[in-house]
Amino acid sequence: MPIHTVIQKYKELQRNTSNGYYNPTNTRIIGEVFIECLRFLGSVEREPLISKVANKSYFAFKKEGKISRAINDNLFYPDEDSWIRMCDVLEQNRLDLLTKEDLAKALYTIAISFCASIDLLKNGDQKTPGTFFEYFIAYLFTWRVGTEPNRSIRILSLDEAETRLRTDFTFNLGVNKQKFHMPIKTSTRERAIMLWAHQKLLDGVYGIEKFMGTPVCLAETKVDKKKKEVIEICTPEQWRVYQLYIAKLKRVYYLDVPNEYVKLNYDFPPIVIKPFHEFFYEWSNLAPS
Amino acid sequence: MPIHTVIQKYKELQRNTSNGYYNPTNTRIIGEVFIECLRFLGSVEREPLISKVANKSYFAFKKEGKISRAINDNLFYPDEDSWIRMCDVLEQNRLDLLTKEDLAKALYTIAISFCASIDLLKNGDQKTPGTFFEYFIAYLFTWRVGTEPNRSIRILSLDEAETRLRTDFTFNLGVNKQKFHMPIKTSTRERAIMLWAHQKLLDGVYGIEKFMGTPVCLAETKVDKKKKEVIEICTPEQWRVYQLYIAKLKRVYYLDVPNEYVKLNYDFPPIVIKPFHEFFYEWSNLAPS
Repeated sequence: MPIHTVIQKYKELQRNTSNGYYNPTNTRIIGEVFIECLRFLGSVEREPLISKVANKSYFAFKKEGKISRAINDNLFYPDEDSWIRMCDVLEQNRLDLLTKEDLAKALYTIAISFCASIDLLKNGDQKTPGTFFEYFIAYLFTWRVGTEPNRSIRILSLDEAETRLRTDFTFNLGVNKQKFHMPIKTSTRERAIMLWAHQKLLDGVYGIEKFMGTPVCLAETKVDKKKKEVIEICTPEQWRVYQLYIAKLKRVYYLDVPNEYVKLNYDFPPIVIKPFHEFFYEWSNLAPS
Repeated sequence: MPIHTVIQKYKELQRNTSNGYYNPTNTRIIGEVFIECLRFLGSVEREPLISKVANKSYFAFKKEGKISRAINDNLFYPDEDSWIRMCDVLEQNRLDLLTKEDLAKALYTIAISFCASIDLLKNGDQKTPGTFFEYFIAYLFTWRVGTEPNRSIRILSLDEAETRLRTDFTFNLGVNKQKFHMPIKTSTRERAIMLWAHQKLLDGVYGIEKFMGTPVCLAETKVDKKKKEVIEICTPEQWRVYQLYIAKLKRVYYLDVPNEYVKLNYDFPPIVIKPFHEFFYEWSNLAPS
């Protein structure tokens, strides 16, 4: 069976990412991946889902007995020009030319289109959507802050040669400038504690909040494929305990913010949960608290 | 299709565990699950695997195109009487009646037989083997220390009614007596940091090492199904950093100890990695360091 164009383009992106996350070639390829995904998804059926999430409506794509992850109706805007338009605006640094709503929709649609396509084109492949999501968010972040991420940090040792520890994405903007610790995950589920644990490691090695923890997640939806129901899997009580006893995260960004996590903004300890597009407006003002 | 006897027996164990992990009914059912697994595995083919792990040899069971996880040849001893014999010895508290080697083989064979059976009877089901492994290890631990585990802990709050946090297994042996924090996992992979993060939480809420961290894992093997090769996925450098910067684990027990983790016993910071059967000999002497 020939490899589907969506996957061909993804592999091209993967190869070129060895040259860095942000570069003109990746700008082109991400756009091509997006268009291939929209064309593929335009050729398959949609299945309405029963939303158990207040004020949100979801559907799924389906093909040959397979059903994709849940797609948020209000955020999905399958316009082939979205990526080009967004890149223009970002390139000119003229965020005022786009409404926040349009930016949120473009970001969500590009990310979820690829994930949904892979759900239908492969069998139980969680890794490919996760890796594309990393490329996509790291591209945007790198572009915006003007520096490529690291995937490991130096650790001092008295006994051995200096060692390096593999980490999630970290961005060091320069001497006395901001440093970000940015795990990028399609969802956190019961693994959320890992976000705080990695922050704790960086706090231990470099000092508390030397790196600001700003993870980016896609969504926390889960589809019951028999009942055709969508829920959001959230554990706000646990997140509160992690923020109290393990480490402090500066932000948790979502492309589709789970309802249950919104309230964490107003509780003690505060955990600031925001839609990811807010990052573009606030990043230069973020500082360790 | 009728439900296979292995799964019927497992469901019986699951139902009866609502009455506690250690009780005479569970003793009987675990024995029955084990015998059903051995009979089922006796009826399917074995596939030799190429071991990339020094001094260990592995095979897999296969049926109708499906292949099970890797089985360690030197630890697999499919004797239907193993469970009864082990229970007798434990019941009389006469560990001297069994060699350590026989105890290690019995423990490994019971756990891996169920996991391998489910690998062949279901499709990509990781949850059922994981839950059985929890039942099995929690049964043994409960029996040995004489107290049932908790799955949540109390957390004090100044602002709200007392809340509870869901945790891995904790065992509180009584006032001024030992307290164990025992995550039970078939493997840890890239999620190992969660063991230390949960320990950090308990340290934060109750004080450092009030609960001793003694996780129990089955193995870290991974089978490449195309090449028919077995490797062990280990990250000893990362474990060392977790033990330095997040929290201290007292022990990490394995039923099939990964080669790469053995050396952690002799490094700084020491992480004591042992075969699980050692727990039966040393548990009453374990104390916070």
